[in-house]
Amino acid sequence: MIRAAIVGATGIVGQQFLVALKGHPWIEVKALAASERSAGKSYRQAITDQSSGAFRWFCDEPPVEEVMDMPVVNASELSTDGIDVVFSAIDSGPAKLLEPKFAAEVPVVSTASAFRYEDDVPILIPGVNPDHARLLEIQRRRRGWKGFVTPDPNCTTIGLAITLKPLLDSFGLNSVIMTSMQAMSGAGRSPGVIGLDILDNVIPFIPGEEEKVQHETQKILGTIEGDGIRPAPFTVSCTCTRVCVLEGHTESVFASTQKPCDVDSIVKAMREHDGGLAGAGLPSAPKNLILVNEDPFRPQPRLDRNNDGGMATTVGRVRKDEAMDNGIKYVLVSHNTKMGAARGAILTAEMLINDGYISG
Amino acid sequence: MIRAAIVGATGIVGQQFLVALKGHPWIEVKALAASERSAGKSYRQAITDQSSGAFRWFCDEPPVEEVMDMPVVNASELSTDGIDVVFSAIDSGPAKLLEPKFAAEVPVVSTASAFRYEDDVPILIPGVNPDHARLLEIQRRRRGWKGFVTPDPNCTTIGLAITLKPLLDSFGLNSVIMTSMQAMSGAGRSPGVIGLDILDNVIPFIPGEEEKVQHETQKILGTIEGDGIRPAPFTVSCTCTRVCVLEGHTESVFASTQKPCDVDSIVKAMREHDGGLAGAGLPSAPKNLILVNEDPFRPQPRLDRNNDGGMATTVGRVRKDEAMDNGIKYVLVSHNTKMGAARGAILTAEMLINDGYISG
Amino acid sequence: MIRAAIVGATGIVGQQFLVALKGHPWIEVKALAASERSAGKSYRQAITDQSSGAFRWFCDEPPVEEVMDMPVVNASELSTDGIDVVFSAIDSGPAKLLEPKFAAEVPVVSTASAFRYEDDVPILIPGVNPDHARLLEIQRRRRGWKGFVTPDPNCTTIGLAITLKPLLDSFGLNSVIMTSMQAMSGAGRSPGVIGLDILDNVIPFIPGEEEKVQHETQKILGTIEGDGIRPAPFTVSCTCTRVCVLEGHTESVFASTQKPCDVDSIVKAMREHDGGLAGAGLPSAPKNLILVNEDPFRPQPRLDRNNDGGMATTVGRVRKDEAMDNGIKYVLVSHNTKMGAARGAILTAEMLINDGYISG
Amino acid sequence: MIRAAIVGATGIVGQQFLVALKGHPWIEVKALAASERSAGKSYRQAITDQSSGAFRWFCDEPPVEEVMDMPVVNASELSTDGIDVVFSAIDSGPAKLLEPKFAAEVPVVSTASAFRYEDDVPILIPGVNPDHARLLEIQRRRRGWKGFVTPDPNCTTIGLAITLKPLLDSFGLNSVIMTSMQAMSGAGRSPGVIGLDILDNVIPFIPGEEEKVQHETQKILGTIEGDGIRPAPFTVSCTCTRVCVLEGHTESVFASTQKPCDVDSIVKAMREHDGGLAGAGLPSAPKNLILVNEDPFRPQPRLDRNNDGGMATTVGRVRKDEAMDNGIKYVLVSHNTKMGAARGAILTAEMLINDGYISG
Repeated sequence: MIRAAIVGATGIVGQQFLVALKGHPWIEVKALAASERSAGKSYRQAITDQSSGAFRWFCDEPPVEEVMDMPVVNASELSTDGIDVVFSAIDSGPAKLLEPKFAAEVPVVSTASAFRYEDDVPILIPGVNPDHARLLEIQRRRRGWKGFVTPDPNCTTIGLAITLKPLLDSFGLNSVIMTSMQAMSGAGRSPGVIGLDILDNVIPFIPGEEEKVQHETQKILGTIEGDGIRPAPFTVSCTCTRVCVLEGHTESVFASTQKPCDVDSIVKAMREHDGGLAGAGLPSAPKNLILVNEDPFRPQPRLDRNNDGGMATTVGRVRKDEAMDNGIKYVLVSHNTKMGAARGAILTAEMLINDGYISG
Repeated sequence: MIRAAIVGATGIVGQQFLVALKGHPWIEVKALAASERSAGKSYRQAITDQSSGAFRWFCDEPPVEEVMDMPVVNASELSTDGIDVVFSAIDSGPAKLLEPKFAAEVPVVSTASAFRYEDDVPILIPGVNPDHARLLEIQRRRRGWKGFVTPDPNCTTIGLAITLKPLLDSFGLNSVIMTSMQAMSGAGRSPGVIGLDILDNVIPFIPGEEEKVQHETQKILGTIEGDGIRPAPFTVSCTCTRVCVLEGHTESVFASTQKPCDVDSIVKAMREHDGGLAGAGLPSAPKNLILVNEDPFRPQPRLDRNNDGGMATTVGRVRKDEAMDNGIKYVLVSHNTKMGAARGAILTAEMLINDGYISG
Repeated sequence: MIRAAIVGATGIVGQQFLVALKGHPWIEVKALAASERSAGKSYRQAITDQSSGAFRWFCDEPPVEEVMDMPVVNASELSTDGIDVVFSAIDSGPAKLLEPKFAAEVPVVSTASAFRYEDDVPILIPGVNPDHARLLEIQRRRRGWKGFVTPDPNCTTIGLAITLKPLLDSFGLNSVIMTSMQAMSGAGRSPGVIGLDILDNVIPFIPGEEEKVQHETQKILGTIEGDGIRPAPFTVSCTCTRVCVLEGHTESVFASTQKPCDVDSIVKAMREHDGGLAGAGLPSAPKNLILVNEDPFRPQPRLDRNNDGGMATTVGRVRKDEAMDNGIKYVLVSHNTKMGAARGAILTAEMLINDGYISG
Repeated sequence: MIRAAIVGATGIVGQQFLVALKGHPWIEVKALAASERSAGKSYRQAITDQSSGAFRWFCDEPPVEEVMDMPVVNASELSTDGIDVVFSAIDSGPAKLLEPKFAAEVPVVSTASAFRYEDDVPILIPGVNPDHARLLEIQRRRRGWKGFVTPDPNCTTIGLAITLKPLLDSFGLNSVIMTSMQAMSGAGRSPGVIGLDILDNVIPFIPGEEEKVQHETQKILGTIEGDGIRPAPFTVSCTCTRVCVLEGHTESVFASTQKPCDVDSIVKAMREHDGGLAGAGLPSAPKNLILVNEDPFRPQPRLDRNNDGGMATTVGRVRKDEAMDNGIKYVLVSHNTKMGAARGAILTAEMLINDGYISG
């Protein structure tokens, strides 16, 4: 069994790591770390508010009893002895300081954006760009680390990159225009999205989000060249909005392809896209990376976010677009805190275990 | 005073006509018509559920006491004697049958789509295409009517057409891509959007809506040629979605202009666009047809739908777009049941009164 | 295996019967009936909208593939040959006509209110009043039926009756005051609760609901006397409201007991209440009929409605009340379309199978 | 004109003071105070986020241009020179320290709870307990202040106390049971209610709220005896919940009266209750303190919160209750941030100006 530490274990993403690793066949949770405030407590105490008695468990799934009595250590004092991989579920600021410390010793799979834009750091999506894992060796060598940092993509990027991949492979891409309708959980809880701001409303701006999506999509779909990645040569332009939805990002995509394409061939390419996942036997992999639903009223975030355990990206409304050359348009739903966060990071770890980058 | 009949007076749009005409300086309500079920009752009785006692008044504004004791007649038996204009707030099916009957005698300003796509019928927006009113004379002559039918645009089209107009005038347009996040009130109440379907959700399809927006935008921004309208020569492609918002449509727009343009010149063109409204003194005209808000978190439907009495279109997040030639992108909010329905129709009527098409 | 027919199979409650019976160890679905409009189609066709292609499956759980190719018959023509039990998921109006027809031949377990208030009809809740099943024999005899009709309680009654039962048994009850905050799904989909009415709102009236809760609670907690039920002798007074929640009714309860009681003894009585369920081995029975959560912020409908498969009633905030003699107060959450509808009816059927009232 | 300072001017309640005082005939805003972070800036700068450009104005009403260029001072350094009254819109913690400092010099009308429970401090509601103002003289004398502190009731108390007053006067009260369904705005914005917690949910606990309502209602409806207030001798028991509503608290009330009463006499007593408001000519007073709506589906928070400028309490569903002696039950809606906060405090100030307690 691979022995994992969860850093940021008391937050919402940390809890989702715990849920997703409960009963995992390859990985077991060996250490929990959080902020100084939680250090020295049992996990149960750490998520129980002392004054009110409130129990701060944020997942739909029941609390993971197996970890309730485990001690929580201060993240800045976590030892990596006896740990094979660190799952980092902390904000970008502390990630910048802590992740290199852990990576000096062991692999770190992170949901934070802190290292996503560095040249020797891949943004891996199993089934999309497994070859980018080669950068991890360059990273190790260049930085003199025994481990490495491999961050997952932003939760809005991941569904877009997954659905563009078969289009890029089959038809080539000139440009992509996307409008997102993002769920509240993407903003976390500190304080996240205030109810007074979002009820009966849409907020048309999420600071930094559009730049992340544009940059990451080109990097993920780029090609390894020498010691780095050449970004994919198509343009990505987007407007990211917040809507009154709990979980599940919806994206309205318009794309211009290089070769002519029709709806049927697009749907076929999406449905058949596998990217090497099918044979690999990764425990968290969805049966289909992309599900295409032909009901014109789908995908809907409430109905489709949990498809295949929240790991499938669901596509619908595939149509021709007349505004761009070889234009097509579609709508996708992707679970932002499952495939787009903890479970996605675990899937990445599984691929890296399979490929020998992480070992016990 | 111009004497008006409201057809469909008991529905939500009909009630908004009543609210918007309360105390109107030019127009007075002289007759109310609805379905057979309401005929013969006072307006108050017609909107009171006999079994439960519920009072079916749907506007935020208080009920209009002035009309509560007016009789409601069966719409199919409404006489146009003593009426100078009919405001039609009925569905497209009955509109197809009833509006020609009324138009044989008097002008009909309609919120229904029944006649929008006929060659001799303009879709007027004051401040955008007042010259299209010329078609009304052609329509009269061709159909042998004393009056005419002039339908307002679809509630999703109107904000798009208004904001594209200054871009078209100043820079020319190649193509437009739009994703809408539409309010529930656009679907009415019979049954409209069911709470179980929309809470914590986005519905990515509104039957017929995308075709309407594409077709109407090109017609509204087209040019009079001979006895008809030549559609504007740019393409419009859109995806229309429903979000959990009561009122106010939000639209994420990407446009490719013919001449190069920058953010400042776009904002300036939008702010200065007036289309002849300023001097006309129309009572329902907004002070600014387009408001540009530079707060990056705006426009928001809850905060901006009621700007200038629900008659202004609010724009924000004007930025360059890299995916299209001379690309720009922005977000707009437009009130779908004020400028996009009853009040918009009244503004159209005011323009037609001013220009002599409607008279007492 | 007990062979079941589902009447009203295409509606939301009917679909929940299908979900709950998928893989059921004792009961198999043998016939599906719905309105004339669906008759003669396969189930898949019957729930697919022909014009739009929309697939009308309303449960969170995936569609039940096993029934998709089964034929749907007209409910008024359903034959009970080869059927051991009918689950009726239709409205009260048609139930009044159809249920006696079926009951003449086989047992009918119903979610409709049509027969709830007749003297020889029990309203059974396993774990609460299993002895009331004796009325079924009286019903059979009196009406000359081979089967019987046994309706489940109203979805608002069930959680109240379950939580009052241990109080009644341990302390006696003088009176009960309850304010409900009910989910939208309780109103169904035809048209159910309109989004425009409930978003950012509370509706303080649900026609007929308060009378149902008051009457049914007294009947369920009453005692068999001779050939009928003597209603429990405490008063029930309630105000039923609708809130913007998808599923799960929340109820704020205040009760006056006959004997003095304290918080600890109330909690203990609720936790230990079993009503004969534990030993019976009914497949759908929750492990605990009542869960008491001591987190003061619980129960919450979104977090607690699915406890124990939606079959447990979750209680919290148990406190002393000063306004009534021996007053106590608490809040409960009960899943209105699981324990409060299809799954609850299946649990009742399981008890009746166990006790020999239903047999193959 | 009475010259006012607003302390806490940048928060949501402070902004509502500014809106409510715009164009006020008796009171003008002369000074603005907030936390140290805002000190030295113009009001416009203080509510503009420097990094994002976001403009933090939280009211539905447009920003008050008249104060945008006024300087904001540090609340702890505010001078009361040239000020006749301080409106305090700060949290209870800082209120405890700052309000006595101001009250040493001038009257302070506060929305904070800091001093509500002190013996020499009244909780005034015009139209309910104007005679309690006598305590202000005792307070002045006892504390040696030139001014005084007079806090408004909790936003949940106010509608309850107002509607109980005519019942108490006409029939006497034994006990009151209340379940509230409170709006999010009652929790403010720091961080207030998180969208992730409240969407599709009800939260059954608001720390401290129930004790406040019980204590304050008895104090407000108590009688002056000697130098203090004897609490009203009826018991109040409540359960306070949070629902997904922006503004407007809904309360389900059950009361036992001393004398027998019927629905008609209750409605009459509520409608006729005036408490001396009608003749007083206070600018912010509602035309009717209590509106009774006979539509069984009312009151609803979205439709009734703004009745009479948010200053009327709307009552509906008045019925007999069978669970208590002489029981009656009803539902009320009261605007928690208008009558229940800033506007309510201004109404109190108007009464105190009228009665000579505050003067220029």
